[in-house]
Amino acid sequence: MRIAQIAPLYEAIPPRLYGGTERIVSYLTEELVARGHDVTLFATGEAETSARLAVVRERALRLDPSPLKSAIAAHLAMLHEVQRRAAEFDILHFHLSHFLHFPMFEHMRECTVTTPHGRLDYSDLAPAYALWQGFPMISISNRQRRPLPAANWVGTVHHGLPLDLYEPLPESQRGIGEPYLAFLGRLSRDKRPDRAIEIARRSGMRLKIAAKIGDDDRPYFHEVVEPLLDHDMVDFIGEIDETEKPAFLGNAAGLLFPIDWPEPFGLVVIEAMAFGTPVIAWNEGAMPEIVDNGVTGFVVDTVDSAVKCVGMLDRLDRREVRRVFEQRFSATRMARDYEAIYAAMAAGSGCSERVRTDHERAE
Amino acid sequence: MRIAQIAPLYEAIPPRLYGGTERIVSYLTEELVARGHDVTLFATGEAETSARLAVVRERALRLDPSPLKSAIAAHLAMLHEVQRRAAEFDILHFHLSHFLHFPMFEHMRECTVTTPHGRLDYSDLAPAYALWQGFPMISISNRQRRPLPAANWVGTVHHGLPLDLYEPLPESQRGIGEPYLAFLGRLSRDKRPDRAIEIARRSGMRLKIAAKIGDDDRPYFHEVVEPLLDHDMVDFIGEIDETEKPAFLGNAAGLLFPIDWPEPFGLVVIEAMAFGTPVIAWNEGAMPEIVDNGVTGFVVDTVDSAVKCVGMLDRLDRREVRRVFEQRFSATRMARDYEAIYAAMAAGSGCSERVRTDHERAE
Repeated sequence: MRIAQIAPLYEAIPPRLYGGTERIVSYLTEELVARGHDVTLFATGEAETSARLAVVRERALRLDPSPLKSAIAAHLAMLHEVQRRAAEFDILHFHLSHFLHFPMFEHMRECTVTTPHGRLDYSDLAPAYALWQGFPMISISNRQRRPLPAANWVGTVHHGLPLDLYEPLPESQRGIGEPYLAFLGRLSRDKRPDRAIEIARRSGMRLKIAAKIGDDDRPYFHEVVEPLLDHDMVDFIGEIDETEKPAFLGNAAGLLFPIDWPEPFGLVVIEAMAFGTPVIAWNEGAMPEIVDNGVTGFVVDTVDSAVKCVGMLDRLDRREVRRVFEQRFSATRMARDYEAIYAAMAAGSGCSERVRTDHERAE
Repeated sequence: MRIAQIAPLYEAIPPRLYGGTERIVSYLTEELVARGHDVTLFATGEAETSARLAVVRERALRLDPSPLKSAIAAHLAMLHEVQRRAAEFDILHFHLSHFLHFPMFEHMRECTVTTPHGRLDYSDLAPAYALWQGFPMISISNRQRRPLPAANWVGTVHHGLPLDLYEPLPESQRGIGEPYLAFLGRLSRDKRPDRAIEIARRSGMRLKIAAKIGDDDRPYFHEVVEPLLDHDMVDFIGEIDETEKPAFLGNAAGLLFPIDWPEPFGLVVIEAMAFGTPVIAWNEGAMPEIVDNGVTGFVVDTVDSAVKCVGMLDRLDRREVRRVFEQRFSATRMARDYEAIYAAMAAGSGCSERVRTDHERAE
């Protein structure tokens, strides 16, 4: 198929800094190319891809040091180019938030599909969707759909990672030193690092926290988290980079993910699983869909339960965690899922035929 | 004429907090109604207006305490409503930044006019405008046009204020106490409060600084401004509200406006003039258009010149400053200017006729 992937312009594809959406767009694009599709990626000039690259802005907005840049104008210009070239594609796959593309693709909505990568409970989203209803949407978890039940959901596709991106550590490198729980991610109120610390203190297992403190989270950090860090069993190791992830996640007895918000996916959870590391996750957002309770980890509602589950982590088979990861959360599985939706849509919509007719007419 | 005013949704119309755009939209709307036009204001529920009000969001985005709101979706929803009702109007006047409305009104651009209220030298704006060229634009100063020379500029309309909003203080309330220079506005690098302080120190006239320190400006304030405040002749009086403005601006010997950026208008400059207070402004942005050199103030290029001009402030006639303000910067003059442009556009575009035909067809 001739597929357009339309990425947000904030970060490079794949991202130089943090960017879950940009990673997924990259993995998906590479897999679709590997599977023989004719893929065009609309993105910024830094993009590294084996697809055709349509550069719509020289630099990603966050990587561009100029203070004088307009995210809205940049995205509108990209959409103009996608619109101009729309007839070249069987399907246009948008990864943009907040429906910016809806007005410009209203007349061909059946040839588009949109993956929103964020939460959907912003008060403006449901009323806006109602004005452009019918746009086909793919959720990244079933839970993500809840604030937008009336949308034209055509599928859920859980994220996936390349199987060789992270692999379990060789036995010789594992289990050296004291067992520990891992917390990885922003130290925001939503992520509840305070709960992670309480679980560690009560379970008696060491906790290692690897996290960046963002500007927005600094007041919360100083008020709530910092006072709790002064404990023998809690190590705050700051931000880690990709090269440090294998040792950090691969050696952990378990990942704690005690979130307090409707996380639509939670990429770090499947990263841990890729290393064979089980997860203790709160019963929030997509967690019950992603964690197989008692197999790849535990889904809990209370600190009490979480503490009990820490004691049961060593009953889980880390090879089985990896096996389930490979089965459920590979980039190949993700690409196949998207591919099946594209195919079903293209068959039903007549987009490809419309396109072919346009092409024939042009010849 | 049947006129739609389309306001940004960040602040109330008129604004509860700071909002230059929202003040101008409010003044313009009220004047147009007073002049007998049939005006509809698209805005949020807080709006207070004598026009017909089309509420497109219950609360202004900045006044809505919810953290889960989407500026993009909110504005798209408003534009959808404007589009649906477009045939009811002879002219659609957009006050939005960054061209968000262009894609949706491409087919009727000749029935629209856009006043951008901010600077236009964002790198994404000129390329985006080129994709939707022809959209009629009204600048708030001639200088504002410079980064977008290829735009379809149909006029410049300087801002204006209602004549009774601010008035010179009665003589009995003036000239009490030591003469001082006033600095009013954000303490940002662009506004160069450091220059204002240097001018005061070197001229020997007291400086009163009334300003809020925004979160973004705090590092600059601590680094650059705070060390300079420790001087007998400099009073930092913090943020002032509307009720304190008359005493602060009306009693000042002059307003210092030593900006270091291409300010497209500079509302505080005409506020000072409304009180009869002359302005010493830098030769930047719209200043040479707004300040009549030697009449309502001085336009300078250096601190040396500014210091000299402080010594010449008392040669300016404050009644003449007010008189020029009344002539050049009243809301009535502003509304008449816009009205003339609307009329010329409606005559040339056939929008009104198109609309009438649509209406007749509907009957």
